[in-house]
Amino acid sequence: MKQSQLFTKTQKFAPKDEVSKNAQLLIRAGFVHKEMAGVYGFLPLGWRVMNNIMQIIREEMNDIGGQELKLTALQSKEVWSKTNRWSDEIVDNWFKSELKNGTKVGLAFTHEEAITGLMKSFVASYKDLPFSAYQFQTKFRNESRAKSGIMRGREFIMKDLYSFSRTQEEHDIFYGKAKDAYVRIFDRLGIGEETYLTFASGGTFSKYSHEFQTVCDAGEDIIYVDKEKGIAVNEEVYNDEVLADLELDKNNLVKEKAAEAGNIFSLGTKFSDAFDLTYRDENEQEQKVIMGSYGLGPARAMGIITELLADENGLVWPENVAPFKVHLINIGEDEKTEEIYSQLQDAGVEVLWDDRDMRPGAKFADADLIGCPYRVVVSSRSLEAGGVELKKRTDKDGQIVNVDKLIEQIK
Amino acid sequence: MKQSQLFTKTQKFAPKDEVSKNAQLLIRAGFVHKEMAGVYGFLPLGWRVMNNIMQIIREEMNDIGGQELKLTALQSKEVWSKTNRWSDEIVDNWFKSELKNGTKVGLAFTHEEAITGLMKSFVASYKDLPFSAYQFQTKFRNESRAKSGIMRGREFIMKDLYSFSRTQEEHDIFYGKAKDAYVRIFDRLGIGEETYLTFASGGTFSKYSHEFQTVCDAGEDIIYVDKEKGIAVNEEVYNDEVLADLELDKNNLVKEKAAEAGNIFSLGTKFSDAFDLTYRDENEQEQKVIMGSYGLGPARAMGIITELLADENGLVWPENVAPFKVHLINIGEDEKTEEIYSQLQDAGVEVLWDDRDMRPGAKFADADLIGCPYRVVVSSRSLEAGGVELKKRTDKDGQIVNVDKLIEQIK
Repeated sequence: MKQSQLFTKTQKFAPKDEVSKNAQLLIRAGFVHKEMAGVYGFLPLGWRVMNNIMQIIREEMNDIGGQELKLTALQSKEVWSKTNRWSDEIVDNWFKSELKNGTKVGLAFTHEEAITGLMKSFVASYKDLPFSAYQFQTKFRNESRAKSGIMRGREFIMKDLYSFSRTQEEHDIFYGKAKDAYVRIFDRLGIGEETYLTFASGGTFSKYSHEFQTVCDAGEDIIYVDKEKGIAVNEEVYNDEVLADLELDKNNLVKEKAAEAGNIFSLGTKFSDAFDLTYRDENEQEQKVIMGSYGLGPARAMGIITELLADENGLVWPENVAPFKVHLINIGEDEKTEEIYSQLQDAGVEVLWDDRDMRPGAKFADADLIGCPYRVVVSSRSLEAGGVELKKRTDKDGQIVNVDKLIEQIK
Repeated sequence: MKQSQLFTKTQKFAPKDEVSKNAQLLIRAGFVHKEMAGVYGFLPLGWRVMNNIMQIIREEMNDIGGQELKLTALQSKEVWSKTNRWSDEIVDNWFKSELKNGTKVGLAFTHEEAITGLMKSFVASYKDLPFSAYQFQTKFRNESRAKSGIMRGREFIMKDLYSFSRTQEEHDIFYGKAKDAYVRIFDRLGIGEETYLTFASGGTFSKYSHEFQTVCDAGEDIIYVDKEKGIAVNEEVYNDEVLADLELDKNNLVKEKAAEAGNIFSLGTKFSDAFDLTYRDENEQEQKVIMGSYGLGPARAMGIITELLADENGLVWPENVAPFKVHLINIGEDEKTEEIYSQLQDAGVEVLWDDRDMRPGAKFADADLIGCPYRVVVSSRSLEAGGVELKKRTDKDGQIVNVDKLIEQIK
């Protein structure tokens, strides 16, 4: 698209009260709008990134058999009372409101209760299992402080998948598939190398839960990483017993700050007990359903990508999530650039063309700030040298590329 | 997909407290889940329909230059006070809550305030205009009664587009384009013929607003339709003066119940006055921005389609919005059916294959209830007769079609 028509512009400054690097940069670059502390809207550039991230997650969830649905934000006391999570004294980050008739309603901070309640209508026999379902749903969490930008909001989109299995063995198989899917997701998002499968505290029904922790300065967690084995241990369970159990050697571990990019839980029968969610097995016996839950916040991922990859000049997007693949900049040469713009678009390349009448330096600065993977500059100088200047966002210098070879080079 | 793996099953009964036809049917068919009165979740079948509807709307909004973004549900008092809409005495359907520090927050029932506030950061010069942006956003409205199923919820997804123009003339041009886009949307959704451009009460800044009203029994409005001219007048402005103004003859008008499927408003400078949203024109003069807003609820559209097209046997989906194009049913003949299933999928046809081990009558009843446009039955009898039985959901009888001709017939 033409940048002159883009809804938003880059800005010199982020709001003064914004302390997080990710939100500062994303606001300055015109990706994100701060409505209030911990509440961020997504502008067209940011929403494109979010959709790219969500599409990658969606494909991987579909691939392991997840079916997409959409539960509701408004929730009743009745459902949450079954697990004793309605009370503000037990869950301290509820947003609550009330209907006209005075009935209290809550805004869901997670959806285990909602989906387990719903499943009661659909699970009866062993033939109805196993299955899994997921959604991209806005969650509301009344955080007392909101200082991590889009990495921890009071309102944020979350992908949450829930699995329902007949036996522990069947659950373990699915859980393994989900773990592998998460690895693929973080690889595709461009943060795979810095993201470690991390052992964290479990619960009644499993020894450990698994987090996917991305090593970065903005992280709120401490983990101990075994880089060779590619796994880590969360500080909360870091002790000799756990290390022995996981066959890790203290001397091979590096202490790192890390941000939780996703987590997966074996829930056992915790929720099926509370909701009496059972199925009739092949022998006509009632059995409890074994559940798992698998969370991943696309905005959190976008924040982590920002924190991890951005440099002093601005954002740096991996190709798979970039709002546009190419930032096309012309210095004069409008007609020739229009031609190249059309060629790229015809070849299916997503291009942001900075067609504005501005000095080159300002255009280059904007391109760095916005952070598309490839910058293509068309000028009389580049044309005389034989084509256009192609520069990767992560490279210092560009190279002259023949226009006919351009598409080949960036595909 | 195989129906045995579908997340949900059809049900014999809808919840006893559900009074609307659309929700009763959609719940029975496994498209929708009632969380509480006026609050509905979408199960995989229903979410497929919603996505088809949203994609049609998205394409038409992009086509008139709209840029997609995502604003927030949580909103501050500050922004809404500018238009005097924060008070519960003035707006009676707020859901409000509060932050940990006691600050009140509201859950947005519309987004004119939010987007006008946001635009202050991005509009300075005449070069920044015109433009338009839209979102699919969950709105919250604290309705005192909720009796229209998914047509009027307390929590619902809304497509809202906002336009920003320099002059009234520029606004009028865009407004005309949006009007045409709405006509195309309702055509593509399969309810174009029964949906009329309807003149309704305007506001300070325009004589009329325009509603798109679909004639159906479940409608909450009364309109007077001139079928020949293809337009209507809402009861609220139905008087001699308006009829004269619109050059309509009382004798050509038919009184009908109708459901509002969409509406478009000229807002003039109402919001730019409140937020002091101005731009510098070519002569360096500050001018107020002229705004418009354009609403369309995909779930409401889904409800209207249900109310309008469903018959005594169940749902009837137009091809463009159907969860699957073909409902494939086998009576024995598993191998042959598997082959046909693959052929259809390879040809890009979306198929729901009822592979369950059930009696044919129950499968047929489910197919009618779910309402895919085409039913294909494979049985020894159909194969002996030369192929498969193909029946449109809207036809009474099917016909035998050679397997090689099947794809051709339904494409």
